Amino acid sequence: MTVDANSKLRGISVANDRIFQQLFDIGTREQLIANYKKVRELTRTLVAPLSPEDQQLQSMDDASPTKWHLAHTSWFFEIFVLKDYLEGYGPYTKEFAYLYNSYYQSIGPQYDRPKRGVISRPSVDEIVGYRKWTDEKMLECIANVSDRDFSKLYSLVTLGINHEQQHQELLLTDIKHAFSLNPLYPKYKECKREKSVSAPLDWLSFDGGQFRIGYEGKNFSYDNEGPAFDMLLQPYQLASRLVTNREFLAFIEDGGYENPTFWLSDGWYWVNRGGIKKPLYWQKEGKWHYYTLGGYLPIEMDEPVCHVSFFEADAFARWSGARLPTEFEWEVACPNSISQKHLLNLDCLHPKSECSHGLVQMIGDVWEWTSSPYTGFPNFNPVQGPIGEYNGKFMCNQIVLKGGSCVTPLDHIRSTYRNFFPPEIRWQFCGFRLAK
Amino acid sequence: MTVDANSKLRGISVANDRIFQQLFDIGTREQLIANYKKVRELTRTLVAPLSPEDQQLQSMDDASPTKWHLAHTSWFFEIFVLKDYLEGYGPYTKEFAYLYNSYYQSIGPQYDRPKRGVISRPSVDEIVGYRKWTDEKMLECIANVSDRDFSKLYSLVTLGINHEQQHQELLLTDIKHAFSLNPLYPKYKECKREKSVSAPLDWLSFDGGQFRIGYEGKNFSYDNEGPAFDMLLQPYQLASRLVTNREFLAFIEDGGYENPTFWLSDGWYWVNRGGIKKPLYWQKEGKWHYYTLGGYLPIEMDEPVCHVSFFEADAFARWSGARLPTEFEWEVACPNSISQKHLLNLDCLHPKSECSHGLVQMIGDVWEWTSSPYTGFPNFNPVQGPIGEYNGKFMCNQIVLKGGSCVTPLDHIRSTYRNFFPPEIRWQFCGFRLAK
Amino acid sequence: MTVDANSKLRGISVANDRIFQQLFDIGTREQLIANYKKVRELTRTLVAPLSPEDQQLQSMDDASPTKWHLAHTSWFFEIFVLKDYLEGYGPYTKEFAYLYNSYYQSIGPQYDRPKRGVISRPSVDEIVGYRKWTDEKMLECIANVSDRDFSKLYSLVTLGINHEQQHQELLLTDIKHAFSLNPLYPKYKECKREKSVSAPLDWLSFDGGQFRIGYEGKNFSYDNEGPAFDMLLQPYQLASRLVTNREFLAFIEDGGYENPTFWLSDGWYWVNRGGIKKPLYWQKEGKWHYYTLGGYLPIEMDEPVCHVSFFEADAFARWSGARLPTEFEWEVACPNSISQKHLLNLDCLHPKSECSHGLVQMIGDVWEWTSSPYTGFPNFNPVQGPIGEYNGKFMCNQIVLKGGSCVTPLDHIRSTYRNFFPPEIRWQFCGFRLAK
Amino acid sequence: MTVDANSKLRGISVANDRIFQQLFDIGTREQLIANYKKVRELTRTLVAPLSPEDQQLQSMDDASPTKWHLAHTSWFFEIFVLKDYLEGYGPYTKEFAYLYNSYYQSIGPQYDRPKRGVISRPSVDEIVGYRKWTDEKMLECIANVSDRDFSKLYSLVTLGINHEQQHQELLLTDIKHAFSLNPLYPKYKECKREKSVSAPLDWLSFDGGQFRIGYEGKNFSYDNEGPAFDMLLQPYQLASRLVTNREFLAFIEDGGYENPTFWLSDGWYWVNRGGIKKPLYWQKEGKWHYYTLGGYLPIEMDEPVCHVSFFEADAFARWSGARLPTEFEWEVACPNSISQKHLLNLDCLHPKSECSHGLVQMIGDVWEWTSSPYTGFPNFNPVQGPIGEYNGKFMCNQIVLKGGSCVTPLDHIRSTYRNFFPPEIRWQFCGFRLAK
Repeated sequence: MTVDANSKLRGISVANDRIFQQLFDIGTREQLIANYKKVRELTRTLVAPLSPEDQQLQSMDDASPTKWHLAHTSWFFEIFVLKDYLEGYGPYTKEFAYLYNSYYQSIGPQYDRPKRGVISRPSVDEIVGYRKWTDEKMLECIANVSDRDFSKLYSLVTLGINHEQQHQELLLTDIKHAFSLNPLYPKYKECKREKSVSAPLDWLSFDGGQFRIGYEGKNFSYDNEGPAFDMLLQPYQLASRLVTNREFLAFIEDGGYENPTFWLSDGWYWVNRGGIKKPLYWQKEGKWHYYTLGGYLPIEMDEPVCHVSFFEADAFARWSGARLPTEFEWEVACPNSISQKHLLNLDCLHPKSECSHGLVQMIGDVWEWTSSPYTGFPNFNPVQGPIGEYNGKFMCNQIVLKGGSCVTPLDHIRSTYRNFFPPEIRWQFCGFRLAK
Repeated sequence: MTVDANSKLRGISVANDRIFQQLFDIGTREQLIANYKKVRELTRTLVAPLSPEDQQLQSMDDASPTKWHLAHTSWFFEIFVLKDYLEGYGPYTKEFAYLYNSYYQSIGPQYDRPKRGVISRPSVDEIVGYRKWTDEKMLECIANVSDRDFSKLYSLVTLGINHEQQHQELLLTDIKHAFSLNPLYPKYKECKREKSVSAPLDWLSFDGGQFRIGYEGKNFSYDNEGPAFDMLLQPYQLASRLVTNREFLAFIEDGGYENPTFWLSDGWYWVNRGGIKKPLYWQKEGKWHYYTLGGYLPIEMDEPVCHVSFFEADAFARWSGARLPTEFEWEVACPNSISQKHLLNLDCLHPKSECSHGLVQMIGDVWEWTSSPYTGFPNFNPVQGPIGEYNGKFMCNQIVLKGGSCVTPLDHIRSTYRNFFPPEIRWQFCGFRLAK
Repeated sequence: MTVDANSKLRGISVANDRIFQQLFDIGTREQLIANYKKVRELTRTLVAPLSPEDQQLQSMDDASPTKWHLAHTSWFFEIFVLKDYLEGYGPYTKEFAYLYNSYYQSIGPQYDRPKRGVISRPSVDEIVGYRKWTDEKMLECIANVSDRDFSKLYSLVTLGINHEQQHQELLLTDIKHAFSLNPLYPKYKECKREKSVSAPLDWLSFDGGQFRIGYEGKNFSYDNEGPAFDMLLQPYQLASRLVTNREFLAFIEDGGYENPTFWLSDGWYWVNRGGIKKPLYWQKEGKWHYYTLGGYLPIEMDEPVCHVSFFEADAFARWSGARLPTEFEWEVACPNSISQKHLLNLDCLHPKSECSHGLVQMIGDVWEWTSSPYTGFPNFNPVQGPIGEYNGKFMCNQIVLKGGSCVTPLDHIRSTYRNFFPPEIRWQFCGFRLAK
Repeated sequence: MTVDANSKLRGISVANDRIFQQLFDIGTREQLIANYKKVRELTRTLVAPLSPEDQQLQSMDDASPTKWHLAHTSWFFEIFVLKDYLEGYGPYTKEFAYLYNSYYQSIGPQYDRPKRGVISRPSVDEIVGYRKWTDEKMLECIANVSDRDFSKLYSLVTLGINHEQQHQELLLTDIKHAFSLNPLYPKYKECKREKSVSAPLDWLSFDGGQFRIGYEGKNFSYDNEGPAFDMLLQPYQLASRLVTNREFLAFIEDGGYENPTFWLSDGWYWVNRGGIKKPLYWQKEGKWHYYTLGGYLPIEMDEPVCHVSFFEADAFARWSGARLPTEFEWEVACPNSISQKHLLNLDCLHPKSECSHGLVQMIGDVWEWTSSPYTGFPNFNPVQGPIGEYNGKFMCNQIVLKGGSCVTPLDHIRSTYRNFFPPEIRWQFCGFRLAK
């Protein structure tokens, strides 16, 4: 099945008519400009190591070329901001509305997703030109919009910034997948590797009771993080840290991939049809190696295991006598103060290992598979119009992931954030933590 | 994807070590014999209209031949009861252990499911012989088992009876699918049709609060109905009756199948790949017709719509400005006293229409799609050993259905019962009710 | 690819306007009746060992249920003979025209071929009734047709008889395939096995020169056997006998299936995609066994190898340093006097082994793959109208086979006969002979 | 089916041991250098209009990226010439032996063909560097090889030159296919269009008799053009010119794609599965347009129809009451003196229209589908070793095409040349001529 995974836009709480109902704090024009510039600057940094040929690659239907990400994130600002709020607006290039629409039916038809890799023209240079034009116009628009429209504009631009952050992560996951198929194993960039130190796994206990779930803060959030609601939880335990490569290797060596009793029925089918025997990017050549954005390297055994599907996470949990946490157990347990020092650290695009005790590795190491199917919270009601068009569209056959990964941008993640992917995908930076 | 839908055995609360932990009331040997005889008698009644050729048909991977259902339900009693509890037991035919195992890995390997339709030998007559042998041995076993083992035996036989009831329904859904592909549209049997009378749709309101979910009674239940737990619900409304064929036709005529804004992303893909434009078995020849177990007939417009997928139910709900209920909303609303007069009424294998007000058509008309993905209740823990082997195996990419259909056996259904199927299936008797 | 293999009707030289141009000798009414009765009697004999359930089986798209063969061969007489030549003709059952049409577009639409196995009704008994009606009407028609129309009728009935002979062979190949998938390995019937004796392989030399190719006799032939034409051949050698199981086993044990240098490019793809490692029906359980119409037996090593594809035959030839003969080399070499004693000998449905020297096993052992793609002879021109509708339709991506097999009816085969199948098929009784 | 079409190397008559048996005239070192430089220069000219992104594209499994063609043709010279004949040879880059091997099993394993489009590194610049290195080493090698080895070297280099010419054509067909999927319809280059003038179709008659088939000249030829042999032909007629767009449009408008009686059985399946209704690259937007290397243009109706499959050519022929010629009829009819002025004319990459009478458009307009399946000539015997490894590998399920197209290099084509492709392909410049 073609999963429209990497271009999905999660429902947002800011658009159109409801913009003033689900308030988040509106900042100043200066702040908005700073936020905008910052996200665009990071995108430029991320693509700097990539040649025009690199930026052309689409290695599977789920992935998109780097240059498509570049153009699509500009398209988003053009269509949802400039078109409505820039005085004297005219389209940069008429055909882009079609070429760089991901899936917005009410905006118009879309170019066939699996063929994005055949669009060699416009060239990378022309797309860079499109981004420069967008930047100029956006700054002009933010500066000149009326006070009356400013809070709406602020909301939409903030949405566009968060949208671009999602694509920053996808850009890295997609190029990693493409490079991994090249037998020369090119490096995206040289990455420093932290020294791995193993920590014993502790089981931390959490009380049951009634808890508040969902986002209620003053900053931006997606609408699938709300409306907040109360929920009863029973007592549970969480593993203090993520499952490591070493532990996952034990599962492999114990015949985990060959024993149907550990697997969900769909998982067992997936394993057998695909001949799956190890995490994505792992390769045994003498010792175990994996492909990373820093090249082809020996596996660091004390790092969190990464690039496993929900099926593999679930099977490992059953093998180990534990289970995966629900998204609610995870959220309730997540500490308020999160050290974000490792988030999207371009010097080390690895899940980090950690040896301290207590609940660690919750934010910014790997996306953590939960046991929760992705559905709307009670009274969830998608916004109307093109931006909210697909708010609930993905609430079927997907699983919630929590916590963000080492390639998630610094200020994009929070404990209420709900990522979601089909249970078989592996090219995202996905790992897991056990519960009881 | 090959869905192992019709042979799945839902987790049960009775087996092996946990047999005495989740008690249900143990009756007498006489009651057990009566229950056993009754279910076997109904199976004989159900296959009576079918020729040997009919019983050979397998029209798709999800379906099984009638004769396979006949043999597999005997196999279940042989392997899980006779083998352990009959003194002097020897296998009826050694190869049957392989041929009629549906998916029990720890019992041994299984014959390839999609090829069940190529097993012409043993013949129907030989399978009838197998069933007679099983009946004799089972009665002998129930009569002679020690008092010490009797309660275990009672539990296992009750499980086998419920298992056979599930296959009674599948037998009818499978032969309906096979017959529908025959351009001569054979009748399974002549069915009386009730006169359809339309009732206005009422919206019935239910309070929010804390509710108990799951089975806590004294009779048999499956283990996915427990452990019972408390849950908070917000106020909601349920439609007083099911959506009708007439209402669904309005959706079709309004372009419902052509408008992507009504559909989940996966549903839209499913509609387009399959060229889906109407419920299964519908055909427009002048007027609208459908294939039924009573032959090819004009559609009764006030009957509940049936043979629609979750995707279609969900799209209709969005089109109508409503939504599907959660399984919990449904269960809490379900009245305690259920009129079962329509259940598996062999004179009329149709969803019934009803014109009274109040909450009607909850039990025994069509399986009702809910919005709830199928997962385990909190602290759900599958039993060990072959019977419980697959308790949680299907808890991925499936949707909960409630209420039973017109082909569900009389005493098999209850308000806590959780059926589950992938969102795209349609050959079961599936319809839906709206919520707000 | 759906291959419409078993229902293809090879072009014939007798129909309609050209009926008097490509003459074959017209016999008497008595002879025609005798021929007709004989072929119908053989069909009855062939299906006698099969139960109603057996006759329902369709094990793959290429194969058809026995009962479909029974009905379709009657349909052919009804549509092409009775409809035009029987006074007072009315259809036996109107829907049969659709159900039992194989691929005659101008007769009308056809029921979807891969779903023939889901037509349980009409029952076998009803089809036997259809055949009896056909027999009565055919005898009446032959007796009463005018002298003016008799020669046309004679031609068409003779065509129908040959058509039924083709289906007699297909009926056996199809049921063999279906039974082979049953792990109980049912026997079609007990077969006597001849004692195998190995003969040394001789290379027999044939001169080059100008030769006449195609049928020019006085009996019935298909139109793809003509028009006869002259052709230049260069000197060549043929193996005196067919390649044996023992020889093919040597190819297997020498790694023949793993070495790409022996295989055509398409063949290598076919081997790898299908995981092909041995002839169809072979199984190694201790010793090598194969499934036969007489059950599951140890392989007779001196028998001709059978149930191999063109790709396997071609790869074996390359491995052995030889090649396959062209259809023309084969035809020119085929001796005029053919011992037919082994043809469709119901006591032994095996390719026979033979130990005499000289050119043996040319007729009635296995169909022999040649190196010739199937195309029309020079000036080949299909007849017009429904019978000739598809004369050239199969002349693409198919390979010519010569000689007939042990399940080809006694009087159906001759040296000019051109059978044809796609290069990957194996369920026919196909083997091969080497050339140089 | 994955067709290994564009990288196939047709059997050659020059390699290894048989190098002196099938002689062609050996020229001087100066001539060889001139030939080598000329072909490499043309490749540079052909890729000049393409950006690095363009050169990265692989639009389907059958096609390859431009940069792969560039590298593979250098690889061929390195592996088959430099490795054996250059003193002090060392590989340019070790991994290239794997990356740029198309299908030579005895050279070693090959990188997965459909993934050629994901190899962004080496970059286009690095591949240009590889080509420069190859050129230097080749010139050094030709200058310094011993007199004893020179004739072998001459043969191999000539083979490499012809190999590169094949890839020059493929490079254009592949980029045309990729660009056609871009909704912006980029131009490869501006092309002058000749003014189309219609000519009436004449039927030219050819006598039957005994003819010599195959190449017997003094220049290079592929080994599938020999050994030459005598053949009997019956009298036949050829159309004086190719079928035009206007004529093909009449077939479309007469319902040609909807009428099964015109189509081969496999062709009818192909049409329906693919929803084929017009030649590749045709589009009706008001008037009929097509995509060309010069952009998206209105169709010139008097040009030869192009980009049709064998199935379409064959169906058109049946519709028109004619047939396709055999490859032998075509070759015998082909005039000795061929005007090559239009061959690979970079100013006009179109099939040319022509209005003169007599047999025209035989060479260098479109590849002409014949009715001949591709097989070896009598006594065809592929050479041994890696170069000849696949000589006969493609002789199954392919059709012979004659005459070369407007993108075939100037000195690559001749009347005995046998191109071959599977009957369903359309991305080559394929058209056809009628025969009777």
